[in-house]
Amino acid sequence: PLCLCWALGLGPAAAAPNILLLLMDDMGWGDLGAFGEPSKETPNLDQMAAEGMLFLDFYTANPLCSPSRAALLTGRLPVRNGFYTTNAHARNAYTPQDVVGGIQDSELLLPELLKKAGYINKIIGKWHLGHRPQFHPLKHGFDEWFGSPNCHFGPYDNRELPNIPVYRDWEMIGRYYEDFKIDLKTGEANLTQLYLQEALDFISKQQASQQPFFLYWAIDATHAPVYASKQFLGTSQRGLYGDAVREIDDSIGKILRHLQQLGISENTFVFFTSDNGAALISAPKQGGSNGPFLCGKQTTFEGGMREPAIAWWPGHIPAGGVSHQLGNVMDLFTTSLSLAGLQPPSDRQIDGIDLLPVILQGKLIDRPIFYYRGNEMMAVRVGLYKAHYWTWSNSWEEYGKGTDFCPGQNVSGVTTHTQEEHTYLPLLFHLGRDPGEKFPLSFASEEYQQAMERISGIVQQHKDTLVPGEPQLNVCDKAVMNWSPPGCEKLGKCLKVPESDPKKCSWPH
Amino acid sequence: PLCLCWALGLGPAAAAPNILLLLMDDMGWGDLGAFGEPSKETPNLDQMAAEGMLFLDFYTANPLCSPSRAALLTGRLPVRNGFYTTNAHARNAYTPQDVVGGIQDSELLLPELLKKAGYINKIIGKWHLGHRPQFHPLKHGFDEWFGSPNCHFGPYDNRELPNIPVYRDWEMIGRYYEDFKIDLKTGEANLTQLYLQEALDFISKQQASQQPFFLYWAIDATHAPVYASKQFLGTSQRGLYGDAVREIDDSIGKILRHLQQLGISENTFVFFTSDNGAALISAPKQGGSNGPFLCGKQTTFEGGMREPAIAWWPGHIPAGGVSHQLGNVMDLFTTSLSLAGLQPPSDRQIDGIDLLPVILQGKLIDRPIFYYRGNEMMAVRVGLYKAHYWTWSNSWEEYGKGTDFCPGQNVSGVTTHTQEEHTYLPLLFHLGRDPGEKFPLSFASEEYQQAMERISGIVQQHKDTLVPGEPQLNVCDKAVMNWSPPGCEKLGKCLKVPESDPKKCSWPH
Repeated sequence: PLCLCWALGLGPAAAAPNILLLLMDDMGWGDLGAFGEPSKETPNLDQMAAEGMLFLDFYTANPLCSPSRAALLTGRLPVRNGFYTTNAHARNAYTPQDVVGGIQDSELLLPELLKKAGYINKIIGKWHLGHRPQFHPLKHGFDEWFGSPNCHFGPYDNRELPNIPVYRDWEMIGRYYEDFKIDLKTGEANLTQLYLQEALDFISKQQASQQPFFLYWAIDATHAPVYASKQFLGTSQRGLYGDAVREIDDSIGKILRHLQQLGISENTFVFFTSDNGAALISAPKQGGSNGPFLCGKQTTFEGGMREPAIAWWPGHIPAGGVSHQLGNVMDLFTTSLSLAGLQPPSDRQIDGIDLLPVILQGKLIDRPIFYYRGNEMMAVRVGLYKAHYWTWSNSWEEYGKGTDFCPGQNVSGVTTHTQEEHTYLPLLFHLGRDPGEKFPLSFASEEYQQAMERISGIVQQHKDTLVPGEPQLNVCDKAVMNWSPPGCEKLGKCLKVPESDPKKCSWPH
Repeated sequence: PLCLCWALGLGPAAAAPNILLLLMDDMGWGDLGAFGEPSKETPNLDQMAAEGMLFLDFYTANPLCSPSRAALLTGRLPVRNGFYTTNAHARNAYTPQDVVGGIQDSELLLPELLKKAGYINKIIGKWHLGHRPQFHPLKHGFDEWFGSPNCHFGPYDNRELPNIPVYRDWEMIGRYYEDFKIDLKTGEANLTQLYLQEALDFISKQQASQQPFFLYWAIDATHAPVYASKQFLGTSQRGLYGDAVREIDDSIGKILRHLQQLGISENTFVFFTSDNGAALISAPKQGGSNGPFLCGKQTTFEGGMREPAIAWWPGHIPAGGVSHQLGNVMDLFTTSLSLAGLQPPSDRQIDGIDLLPVILQGKLIDRPIFYYRGNEMMAVRVGLYKAHYWTWSNSWEEYGKGTDFCPGQNVSGVTTHTQEEHTYLPLLFHLGRDPGEKFPLSFASEEYQQAMERISGIVQQHKDTLVPGEPQLNVCDKAVMNWSPPGCEKLGKCLKVPESDPKKCSWPH
């Protein structure tokens, strides 16, 4: 029905390939065997890497979940698509259930665009782009949904806070801790199995109907509270977190084999990555590993934003490939459009780039990586150099309460507990010699001067042309929480909505 | 000529296989692509791992070079074989050129024993078991030597200190910085190429003469001052250290291919490892990476003693194997004897175990790992638990001079700058959940009680039965330095020996 054209050298006009994004939650760069996790317990993901292409320099657009996901689906930095706050300087913000904002209709999401190429789009798992009716994923291009709008925190008492709903398509079908059990004591929950089955079923259905699909598998077993199904509990050297990873690894193995058994693996582009670095605040029992990198989630050090990443597409991606392309979750937007034979929107700034020349032809594209925290560009990577314009781990106040984003790590003047501005003399690291950001280059060195000359121009241009979006994460109101989601009547699970009382959200980090 | 018997299930009586130990100097666990180094610049070693067996829980016997090497070649802890000091408590010691001691005749070295099975033994590179005549490697079982007795420090003025000699067999053939150039400014030196050629020639010669060989390839390009040949300079993302690693990786690829081309790869057991953790004091320009582990060389944290390790023996070791066997460089002694059909000496305590059942049959052998610093057992690993009986990084005095064994890392009460005794309540870590030793278990937890019950018994038995050797690294004397090594006359390179003035060596760490 649709006629599309490629110029990728894929041989005779191929049908638009299916697109499968496997997005992990709080999984760190160092959590896979292929990335050096010492227990080496991810045989399926390691195999996926051996059959596909490993990206060693792949980043998220933000060290926190909601902005990262908004960036992935819009191809735009959170500061452009509105997933940030201006309530305070350089603060991470996300979508807890009292946040008023969410994804704006003016943003064009990947599934909306893929529809034009005949794709059927499904999200399985965590949406996190707003939970109010206007932000519903099916209003933003997805055709199907099984999962939740928010994190699986809880259990709540349904008086101060409602339990988080689980949706099937337009309506909720239950709530976490009520209909979808998570045992916080044992860590047992069968959610990954549910998400796996949903994926297998959807893939089978699409294969049968011969319609290309976009499946966004955004599971959350590695986000605290970490969970695993009974048969995986106690199977890891790494404790409960490792059990969750093992179940995910097993599930991804099953998904890839399913594609192969259906004979569609050569027509399905699969990409695996994570939304932000491992949450070291939850370590060691509920948090993962960022390998040799500094700090974790919530920070703009490498541990907060460098992600494990694997591309897999048998017959197209040469096995055993390794790329040092600086990549970003936003590239998945542009790359997916390219796979579908579509152009990215031209009426707005798109930050993602098309990775297909990298993946299929081994090219390297010169582009910077920007590290944002809320409304502030904290750092930038250009080539192997990373310049910090601002440094901050968290405040002394939060640190004093025991919240540590860099446990066991302390780089003087770098992992600071006050927001330190370095705009006039950025801290510069060479990530090849010093991936752990421990040894800033001497300001007086020729190497510093030369690198900063190049970087300054790139930063200047970025700042000069930046048009920030309307910040969506400023206002919180308990009235907007998940009291009475659509479908609650059928279930008898509607809760009384309290009076509206909008306030500035508090973002301590 | 010799008739030997194996009970390894290798099929019909095989000839004694050649043994090739590739021992790196100061290379860290995190320095290979296969172990998660983010630049992934070691294709040959990664391939070796893919074709062989990766050991993820392999240790050295000491976090410093000489004791580690003495342990490897004797199969015994340094505290038994004499490679330690009692000048002060828990101090690392090695063999600088003014040390009086060295390997004792009473110790039985691997090559001495292998001779009984008809092996021809060669050491290429760094000996480090004493440089005085009685300690010469050819007096301790080696048939050939190309390399040096000490580290390639220098250049010296030949008045206060002589430059380090390079030997061929019994005699010196030159000195570093004089006849064997190391350019400290550019990092250029062709030593790895010399060591490579020596290895290739020796292997060819042995293959031609049909005699089994033991080749101990103890190269030192990754020990500061780090060096690489011209064609490798500037080729790494990681700077000069990475250039050295790339040249070593390339050389090992050539050695393995040479074995294959000669048709003897199935009859040559190859093992790759390192003498101690990466020297973080030399980072980032001259030091490597310990991946996710704590601290580095000189310490008994994982970064000081966990080593990269790969076993390779095509046709015998299944490709792609991964082992969590707790291994130790001392096991290479016992394993090599086993390969040669020999029993380890029964008249002394041997700490190494035979890894062949692990390598060939995938078995796991329960055994502890002891972490010594000089005359003190600092820590012990039993299963996934590691108990610290003493903690120390280095003294405040040394730390104040800028010597930091844990740059950017600081675990309160763990990376201490005073020697802290924990004998009565050891600090306990679970290395599966917490490979970075950042989160000690609660003393009051049931897990702590249960683990320590088991560990205490093992430590008690170890201490009760320990017979320390005579310490060899207590006395230093400038008269014993390399003033006039054998062969110096022919070269006109004999230097005047100063008067003897023996003193206690100073070991600050």
